[in-house]
Amino acid sequence: MTPGLRVVLVAPRNPLNIGAAARAMSNFGFTDMRLVNPYDVAFREAKSAVKSGYILDRVQVFETVADAVADCSLVVGGTSVGNRDLHVPLYRLEAAGQLLNQTLQTANAALLFGSEKFGLSNEDISHCHCLYRIPAREEHGSMNLGQAVAITLYELRRDPQTESQRFEAAPRAEGAEFERITALLYQLLSDSGYIQERMAEPAEIRLRLLVTRLGISASDAKTWQGILRQIQWKIDQQKPK
Amino acid sequence: MTPGLRVVLVAPRNPLNIGAAARAMSNFGFTDMRLVNPYDVAFREAKSAVKSGYILDRVQVFETVADAVADCSLVVGGTSVGNRDLHVPLYRLEAAGQLLNQTLQTANAALLFGSEKFGLSNEDISHCHCLYRIPAREEHGSMNLGQAVAITLYELRRDPQTESQRFEAAPRAEGAEFERITALLYQLLSDSGYIQERMAEPAEIRLRLLVTRLGISASDAKTWQGILRQIQWKIDQQKPK
Repeated sequence: MTPGLRVVLVAPRNPLNIGAAARAMSNFGFTDMRLVNPYDVAFREAKSAVKSGYILDRVQVFETVADAVADCSLVVGGTSVGNRDLHVPLYRLEAAGQLLNQTLQTANAALLFGSEKFGLSNEDISHCHCLYRIPAREEHGSMNLGQAVAITLYELRRDPQTESQRFEAAPRAEGAEFERITALLYQLLSDSGYIQERMAEPAEIRLRLLVTRLGISASDAKTWQGILRQIQWKIDQQKPK
Repeated sequence: MTPGLRVVLVAPRNPLNIGAAARAMSNFGFTDMRLVNPYDVAFREAKSAVKSGYILDRVQVFETVADAVADCSLVVGGTSVGNRDLHVPLYRLEAAGQLLNQTLQTANAALLFGSEKFGLSNEDISHCHCLYRIPAREEHGSMNLGQAVAITLYELRRDPQTESQRFEAAPRAEGAEFERITALLYQLLSDSGYIQERMAEPAEIRLRLLVTRLGISASDAKTWQGILRQIQWKIDQQKPK
């Protein structure tokens, strides 16, 4: 079996949150949800309500955190405040995410989320190798559980290598296209009286720069040429015979 | 006025989503929410229900996307699918986040989110300089609106420089502490018969490595010494006189 991430919700109370956590897991391709002592009604309601039902169908319910993380080599707890007294290392999500991804290459790991109202208890935290905090404003207090799960799983799937990549990019127009557009525009502006003959050369240079800065795609370049040709045609038509 | 980010929800239908978006904005320190043609009931319910009311109190409502983004130099639309026909560049969130943060240093920018059911229309998209997609599984389809807003704002606030930093770290124990623990443990294991005299030297080395690998903090080192001394005391007590 390949190592996996367990998303463990401790004593969740709100069915909408259980459902939102399941939906975020489905979005990012995680399937192993575990609940510790869920509020029964909440669990049943979540099960019947949510689209990502396949995750809730195979959810495992445990009585203790120890049982829920028994097969995990790394247990990371989410917190909005940490607990200085317990001396459990507190990381930012960015760092905890790296640790989790590293561990998941060879071993199971668990993400532990506390109840909506109280967060993780000291006993819950005593099962954690480290805690992490989403870098939100401290003044606001805790985050919504479903959003916290979504952000955390996003961080695990985020790919720092792709920060400058597009999914897809329209091919950019080539120099000849820019040149054709510049020429068409030049003619149009000469005929319109925008460009005076004695200023011809600097005007052409400025026009070319203006067109180049548009940075348009190959297919847009064709469209612009059509537009300019049509206007030129209209002007030619109206010339006094 | 410093440049700001406008979070623009186009035709939102669910008050819970408007509230969740406001909460995520408050979490990450953004305050300027704009609604285009919201479903009136949804907006009223969201306003009365949510904790992050100060954002909803100053929300601006517009009739068109054009009005909502009139003061923005960059408009970035969230999508789960993109639209190849429109030739609007489609980035991953990681890349769009960089572009937004860069722009926000000098100008206003808008994040555009479509309605829960239909996403952004082609007309909405025609106001966008680019689109972005959260790198979730395509098969799952669209994300929950509140979660999409939360993840996007997290990406804007994420600090790549801090990936290896802890918020706080307990100071690590120094060599002398490890040495004291090793010595105490050695004595204890000699007295317990775990270490035979003829194996003394390799045993001490192995013990030191074992203790060093614990990588404990300074305050934990004190606790461990106390534990070991207490056990030693008990063994000494029980020695036949």
